[in-house]
Amino acid sequence: MTDNDSEFTVTPYTVSGEIDYEKLLEQFGAGRLTDEQIARFPEPVHPLVRRRVFYAERDVDRFLSAATAGERHSIVTGRGPSGAMHLGHIVPLYFAKRLQQQTNALVYIPFSDDEKYFVTDRSLEEIGEQTRENLRDLLAVGFDPDRTRIIVDTADADVIYPLAVAFGAEVTESTFKAAYGESQNIGHSFYPAVQAAHLLLPQLVTGRHPTLVPIGVDQDPHVRVCRDIAAKQRYDVDKPSALLSKFLPSLEGSGKMSSSSDSETAPTIHLSDDRETVFEKIHTHAYSGGQSTVDEHRARGGDPEADVSYQLLHSFFEEDDDRLDRIAREYRNGSLLSGELKGMAATAVASFLDAHQRRRRRLNSLETELRRYQLTEREREHARRRVGHSTFKAMI
Amino acid sequence: MTDNDSEFTVTPYTVSGEIDYEKLLEQFGAGRLTDEQIARFPEPVHPLVRRRVFYAERDVDRFLSAATAGERHSIVTGRGPSGAMHLGHIVPLYFAKRLQQQTNALVYIPFSDDEKYFVTDRSLEEIGEQTRENLRDLLAVGFDPDRTRIIVDTADADVIYPLAVAFGAEVTESTFKAAYGESQNIGHSFYPAVQAAHLLLPQLVTGRHPTLVPIGVDQDPHVRVCRDIAAKQRYDVDKPSALLSKFLPSLEGSGKMSSSSDSETAPTIHLSDDRETVFEKIHTHAYSGGQSTVDEHRARGGDPEADVSYQLLHSFFEEDDDRLDRIAREYRNGSLLSGELKGMAATAVASFLDAHQRRRRRLNSLETELRRYQLTEREREHARRRVGHSTFKAMI
Repeated sequence: MTDNDSEFTVTPYTVSGEIDYEKLLEQFGAGRLTDEQIARFPEPVHPLVRRRVFYAERDVDRFLSAATAGERHSIVTGRGPSGAMHLGHIVPLYFAKRLQQQTNALVYIPFSDDEKYFVTDRSLEEIGEQTRENLRDLLAVGFDPDRTRIIVDTADADVIYPLAVAFGAEVTESTFKAAYGESQNIGHSFYPAVQAAHLLLPQLVTGRHPTLVPIGVDQDPHVRVCRDIAAKQRYDVDKPSALLSKFLPSLEGSGKMSSSSDSETAPTIHLSDDRETVFEKIHTHAYSGGQSTVDEHRARGGDPEADVSYQLLHSFFEEDDDRLDRIAREYRNGSLLSGELKGMAATAVASFLDAHQRRRRRLNSLETELRRYQLTEREREHARRRVGHSTFKAMI
Repeated sequence: MTDNDSEFTVTPYTVSGEIDYEKLLEQFGAGRLTDEQIARFPEPVHPLVRRRVFYAERDVDRFLSAATAGERHSIVTGRGPSGAMHLGHIVPLYFAKRLQQQTNALVYIPFSDDEKYFVTDRSLEEIGEQTRENLRDLLAVGFDPDRTRIIVDTADADVIYPLAVAFGAEVTESTFKAAYGESQNIGHSFYPAVQAAHLLLPQLVTGRHPTLVPIGVDQDPHVRVCRDIAAKQRYDVDKPSALLSKFLPSLEGSGKMSSSSDSETAPTIHLSDDRETVFEKIHTHAYSGGQSTVDEHRARGGDPEADVSYQLLHSFFEEDDDRLDRIAREYRNGSLLSGELKGMAATAVASFLDAHQRRRRRLNSLETELRRYQLTEREREHARRRVGHSTFKAMI
C-alpha cells in the first residue's frame, strides 16, 4: 500500500520510505495489540510481543483462548528462500519455537520457492540451492518434529497445488491488484492461492481450529486475501489470526533488514557470520544514537530509540526488562558509551549465532532430518479431501 | 479471437457465430494443411486428415519426418472433464490411437480438472466424478499402455505444478489477455502455464523430440503460448507441432458440438447412448440437406455438405472413399433419401458406440487400469529436473 502524504510504500514486494506504522494499521484495517492481549500470552511473554515489535493483530484473542485452554491451535510462519538468511529472517522462527514450547502449538512452515522464482530473477537451480541452505537453518532452530510440518511448495506440490486450485477460483485479478499491485507474471498472479493453502493447511490437515500467523506487517495482504477466502465458509475453517510486526531495523537504522543490501554502507548480519564478523559489522555499521565524541556523549547522552544496537537488544536479544531499562537509562545519561552498547549487542548476537551454528552443524543429512517433519500421506489426503478432492486417492 | 466483420468468436472458452475457417488461419497465423503433408501421413490416412477436418497445421512436417523415420515422436491430446463425453470428444482420441498403432507414437493424455474448476461453476466433487467417468471412456479407446501416459492435473500435481512454476514465470497477464480474453480468476490466469506443462511433458520426460498436438482450432491459443515458451530455448525442447481441426457439427448443423446443449432442439450424442437413442436422436434432430418431401427430394436431390448425417460419415464413420462418393452422388441426384442417409449414419455411429461401450464394460477397476498408464517416479523426476528442479528429489 502506498501512502501519498507521507510517502512510504508497504506491500509484500516493496517496502520503502519512512513507515508510519499507525497509519498502516488504518489502511490495512488491523487492530493495535492491547495490553490485555499481551497479558494473555503465556509467561514469560516473548520480548517481541511484550515490547510491541509485534504491534498489531487480527483475531489474536481467538488464538489465545485456544492456546491457553489447551485446545488445538497452530502457527504458520514461512520463508521465501531467495538468498542466505539473516537475523531478521530467523527471529520469527525462534519466536514460533518459544510459543510451541509454551503452548504445544502445531507449527507449519511453508517454503515458497515458487513465489521466489516468480518475483526474482534467480533460476530454479539457485532457488533450490538456497532452499536447501535455508532448510538447514530452519532445522537448527529445533522445533518439535512431532508437532511441526515443513512444506516446500514445489516438493510438496501433491498437496499444495490441489488446495491452491480450490482457492484460486475464489480470487480475481482485481483482488490481486488491490492487494499487491501489478502482477509480474501469471505465476505471481496465482501465488495468493498458494499462500492461502499455506495459511489454511493446519486446519485442512487436522480440522478447524485457530491459526496464528506472526508476520511482518508488509505480508498482511496475504492474510487479508486468505481471510476473505475462509470467510466464505466453504471449507469449514476459521479465518487465520495474525500478529503483525514492525521491521527489525537494518544496521543503518531504518526500513526493513534486507538480504539483498550487501552494499558496503549497510551489510546485514547473516546467520553464517562468525563472532568476529558480527563485531566488525556492528561496530563499523550499526547506526548509533550516541554523540560524535566521548566527551559530548558523557555530557549530553545518547538516544536509545534511534540506536540500532539498543533496538537489537530491545526486540530480541535482552529478555530481562530491568537490565534493558538500566541500559537505556545509562545510555541516555551518557554513562554508557556507544562503543560499549555496541559491544553488548554484538556479544548477544554473536552468542545467539554461535549456538545456532552449533546446532546447524550437528544436523544429520537434510533428507534424514526433513523426514521427521514431513506431512504424512494420510495428512495430505485429509487436506485434499477437505477442499473437495474426494476422489483423489482413488485415482492413483 | 473475435472477428468484427464476420461476427464470429473463437477462443478456448467461447465459440460462436458462423466460423470463417480460412479467416481464422490468417488471424492465428497457422498454415493450411497441404496435399503433400496429407500424403506423408502413414497409410491408411485417417479420414479426419484425408478429408481435411484437420485443415490446418503448425510445423507438422517436423513431426511427420520423425514419425516416418521411426524416430521418437509423441502426441498430446487432452480432455477437460466438465461433463459426460459425447462423440465430438472421443473422435480425436480414436484418431490418436490410430496414429499410435501406425507409427508407435508416445501418447500423453492430460486431464485438466483444474481448468474446468476455474472456468465452470461445477464443484471439485462434481469434476472429480466426471473425471472418473471420462477416464473410463478414455481407457475404453484402448491405447497401448507401454507408450501412453494419462495425467490428471490435481492427481499428478507433484510433476505438473513444478513444471507449471517454471513456465508460469514466462507468461505475463497481457499475454494471457491477448490470447484468451478476460481471466475469470487467478487460477484461470495461471492455467496457460499448466497447459504448457502438458504440451512439453513428453519431451521433458523422454528428451527433445517432435510432439504433435491434434486439437480443435479453438484451442490453438494454448499451442501458441506454449510455442513461445519453447522458443526461448531454456529447456532444450522443440516447439510443439499442431494439427488444427474444424468442429464436428452439432446435430442441428452448425458451430461446435456442445456437451452443455441438452436443449430439446439439438441433443448431442453421448458415448453412453444406446442404439435406440442414437437412431432416435439422428432421425429426429440431425439437420438434413434433403428436400422436405420425398417427391421433391427425388426430383431435386439433397445437399450432402449441409447434411449432418453425411458429415458424420465423411469426417469419421465411413472410411471407404468410394462408398462415401457414391453416397454423396446418390444423395445429390435424389436416389438416396434423407431418411436412408440418416439410417446409414445412425447405424455407423451406433455400431461404433456399441464397440466402445463393450470395451468400457470390460475394464477392470479404474485404479487397476490407470496404474498401467501412470508416469513412473523416474519419469516424473526426469521432467522436474529438466526444468531446473535439480535438488527436488533430495529434498524429500
